[in-house]
Amino acid sequence: MAERTATRRPAPQGRRPGNPDTKQSILLAARKLFAANGYTNTSMRQIAAAAKVDAALIHHYFTTKEQLFLATVEISVDIPGAIAGVLAGDPATFGPRLVRTFLSVWDSDAGASLVVAFRAAIADPLTSGMVRDFISTAVLGGIAGAAHLATDDVPRRLTLIASQMVGLAVTRYLLALQPLAGLPADDVVQAIGPTIQRYLTGPLS
Amino acid sequence: MAERTATRRPAPQGRRPGNPDTKQSILLAARKLFAANGYTNTSMRQIAAAAKVDAALIHHYFTTKEQLFLATVEISVDIPGAIAGVLAGDPATFGPRLVRTFLSVWDSDAGASLVVAFRAAIADPLTSGMVRDFISTAVLGGIAGAAHLATDDVPRRLTLIASQMVGLAVTRYLLALQPLAGLPADDVVQAIGPTIQRYLTGPLS
Repeated sequence: MAERTATRRPAPQGRRPGNPDTKQSILLAARKLFAANGYTNTSMRQIAAAAKVDAALIHHYFTTKEQLFLATVEISVDIPGAIAGVLAGDPATFGPRLVRTFLSVWDSDAGASLVVAFRAAIADPLTSGMVRDFISTAVLGGIAGAAHLATDDVPRRLTLIASQMVGLAVTRYLLALQPLAGLPADDVVQAIGPTIQRYLTGPLS
Repeated sequence: MAERTATRRPAPQGRRPGNPDTKQSILLAARKLFAANGYTNTSMRQIAAAAKVDAALIHHYFTTKEQLFLATVEISVDIPGAIAGVLAGDPATFGPRLVRTFLSVWDSDAGASLVVAFRAAIADPLTSGMVRDFISTAVLGGIAGAAHLATDDVPRRLTLIASQMVGLAVTRYLLALQPLAGLPADDVVQAIGPTIQRYLTGPLS
């Protein structure tokens, strides 16, 4: 046992791999750099330097830059909590509730992380695959818990909802298309809420 | 006159600046390279080499890479013609007609150019501004000719339409989110057409 320990690569100075503060400081440094410089222009080495840890430790915790990036989005947004709140209320007002929750997340401090995530996702076909899976699993997979709300065609209904919500994110937050970008949340909820409601429970043909 | 001609920079060999074939060959070379390598990874120099013209001639015709890029989108898609077709029919079926026309453009050979344009637009905040202006002017400006269709709030209605159509483009063509990416055009028209119709002529609150 003593011999195996002796052959390990030395731990980074000052912090130990098992320290949860280390993981958190990597995440915070990564979030800051991704938001400032974008996904492509941020390296694991820069994140290590900003977090004052060895780059090998980042790989230990997050394996790849993609996974680290998704983790920065996850600490910014409590996706399961947000989805649970949307699913909890009256099924007849699911649409407006989803739009209001979505806007409250994007208008919060987490919005900058999400803008970076979407820019990266859409810019690069490889990253597109990663974020497509993220949307499918974390977001649509969560809403699929509302399958009892829809009568049929659940996967089709969920991707129709995604088409409107992704479009809202891109036009309002990434492209800042006016006047949509400047509309009060109430106005957006009233305009787009019924669309989402119909995609979930209304007739599609 | 002879003296002024003598002081001009020499024209590129083999082709003359006034030749419309030259402009067209630049556009075709640019479209091919943008589609293959993306906006950022394509240089004016590469386009010049592929079109067999002097790089200065590209600047003469298009001034900037941004303008050349938009021109490649414009030769791929007859936007005014497409909009005219959508506006020409029964106002009560504007929504389904817009969705069908939109799908026919994105499902055509021009689709690859549009995917490149959207990736570039969304990836980079500077290019976002360019494509935001492009959407506002060429697309929404054209549809604003349908202002007689809407009762009020025309700018708000047009950007709501943009939010659904941009989202359809991103989820179906850029992210290839299933099952939406694989749905027949008829199904998409039946699902999303009524959304567009309501955004244009229905109640928004």
